[in-house]
Amino acid sequence: MGYAQAGVDIEAGNEAVRMMKKAIQRTYSPQVLSGVGHFGGLFDAALLAKMDQPVLVASTDGVGTKTMVAAKLDRWDTIGQDLVNHCINDILVQGARPLFFLDYVASSKLNPEQMAQIVGGMAAACQAAHCAILGGETAEMPGVYQSGQVDLVGTIIGAVDRAQVITGETIQPGDLLIGLPSSGLHTNGYSLARLALKELDWNEPRADLHDQSIGDALLAIHTSYLEPVSRLLDAGLEVKGLAHITGGGLIDNLPRILPKGCTAQIDTESWARPPIFDLIRQQGGINEAELWRVFNMGTGMVVELSPESLEEASKRVDESYLIGEIVKGDQQVILE
Amino acid sequence: MGYAQAGVDIEAGNEAVRMMKKAIQRTYSPQVLSGVGHFGGLFDAALLAKMDQPVLVASTDGVGTKTMVAAKLDRWDTIGQDLVNHCINDILVQGARPLFFLDYVASSKLNPEQMAQIVGGMAAACQAAHCAILGGETAEMPGVYQSGQVDLVGTIIGAVDRAQVITGETIQPGDLLIGLPSSGLHTNGYSLARLALKELDWNEPRADLHDQSIGDALLAIHTSYLEPVSRLLDAGLEVKGLAHITGGGLIDNLPRILPKGCTAQIDTESWARPPIFDLIRQQGGINEAELWRVFNMGTGMVVELSPESLEEASKRVDESYLIGEIVKGDQQVILE
Repeated sequence: MGYAQAGVDIEAGNEAVRMMKKAIQRTYSPQVLSGVGHFGGLFDAALLAKMDQPVLVASTDGVGTKTMVAAKLDRWDTIGQDLVNHCINDILVQGARPLFFLDYVASSKLNPEQMAQIVGGMAAACQAAHCAILGGETAEMPGVYQSGQVDLVGTIIGAVDRAQVITGETIQPGDLLIGLPSSGLHTNGYSLARLALKELDWNEPRADLHDQSIGDALLAIHTSYLEPVSRLLDAGLEVKGLAHITGGGLIDNLPRILPKGCTAQIDTESWARPPIFDLIRQQGGINEAELWRVFNMGTGMVVELSPESLEEASKRVDESYLIGEIVKGDQQVILE
Repeated sequence: MGYAQAGVDIEAGNEAVRMMKKAIQRTYSPQVLSGVGHFGGLFDAALLAKMDQPVLVASTDGVGTKTMVAAKLDRWDTIGQDLVNHCINDILVQGARPLFFLDYVASSKLNPEQMAQIVGGMAAACQAAHCAILGGETAEMPGVYQSGQVDLVGTIIGAVDRAQVITGETIQPGDLLIGLPSSGLHTNGYSLARLALKELDWNEPRADLHDQSIGDALLAIHTSYLEPVSRLLDAGLEVKGLAHITGGGLIDNLPRILPKGCTAQIDTESWARPPIFDLIRQQGGINEAELWRVFNMGTGMVVELSPESLEEASKRVDESYLIGEIVKGDQQVILE
């Protein structure tokens, strides 16, 4: 209950853990009622009363086996950010902005320095999104987790006015799709990527990765699309649909918002894909079709707009690019 | 996003998983906006506007190594209920009643039958508490989890009017403590219990457990105190403080709500403890003091009341019993 990660503090009492607690406190918005009672976990919901029809939107997720990459490289400052940003994007696609976040971190053996880095990453991502870390829990379970391995789980709660919920219902043939760039794999496809790249050195900078190492490329932080998408929404542009490109790539994620009679036609050469995907393809002997079925391939968020909105959207979000259009069809994705 | 456990359905498509989905749908309150969009995870917050000062209360938790007991006995229908009830009690102590719940289930290998039992248990406990399962996620990570092991994580969101938040602030010497019975270990102390009992047969009914087996006693479902505590609150009785007795027992959990100048004096013989605790003590060679430091010892929830409220409280909640009183002191717990 409340912030049980304080439990680590009692045992360790070290500087890293004190910094972690400070990092969490920096995420507190005025809505967090930290002075009430001894538990925490209270969030003032008065702001919801200002909406016409407030709707809470919630999502729970993990970061999959990206934790194994962090464990292999013993770098723990990024996966907390991955988790928060993934959760933010998952409710953003329905038009919701984050209110607060709760986390769970479990391991074969809890290490205070590692915990402080993981939670510090979460706190940084939450602070950037004006999202409070309202609670958390840790668990040490050597019989359940493999030695040295960690799992982390985040739950985000956001809100949206009912009339502003994004459903994809108004999407029609002729509408356009714009993409927003991903930083790399985000949090999907790590089992395949780890297998494909297992024989290579993960620490050496590589020319074919623009002088990044494989480790750096694989740990690139999951992009939060809160800021660019908020720019579109706040400008009053009609965002007809949003798709967060996670496991299953464009092929699985785009159809979730396509209404009947609509198919998405994508020009796969309309953006430059990060080089890590080609390295995975070459090293793993994976064909192009399979790549597109597993990875986001460089586009982490897709926005559906009417053609009239394109110019304004491009102006508002510099990094966006046209990737395709909606055509008549049966809720499919055509890659060209 | 939304109910990703549907992912299991696609691969398995079996009867168990269909039943699981139906069980989840039975938890849907009218607030769940399941017809809006294709994602789910939307909860109509209009009811919060009816409160004077709505406060959201949230908590994330796991069930610790009770999952290893479930794995050893290959019985998966109870731990989902443990998780939900634990979460309910954790926000109930602040006066909040549950709105919705999200779950995460991860394993070395996902087994649809096992998943259906776990989630079916969650759904049963949520339905009993009029709490909707708003979302969930599953993960299969053989490199992270030990073979055959499972972890599950729940997040609950509840609400309370700010004036009704229970803080313990008005507790004073002379107040009384009443206990509500636990069903056994609930979700704490399993590492110690498993060690103490490892040489015994867990399937055989035992005379010293009133003909229960060790397995049955250890898997006894974590009690939800929503119903009895709601009876007290709805009767308008001043519940000054509530303590959910989890890891650390009465000794660690009671002081969290004691204001300065108050100590709790407990008569440890005022209730009959479940026999599993004595078996653990004998088999593990654990002394009495250690037992009280790890286990709830048969009392899973403690309610602080003024003496004037005792008679009415006892009438409203049959199963309650007087366990002690508040005396002057330094936020300690005295066991007598």
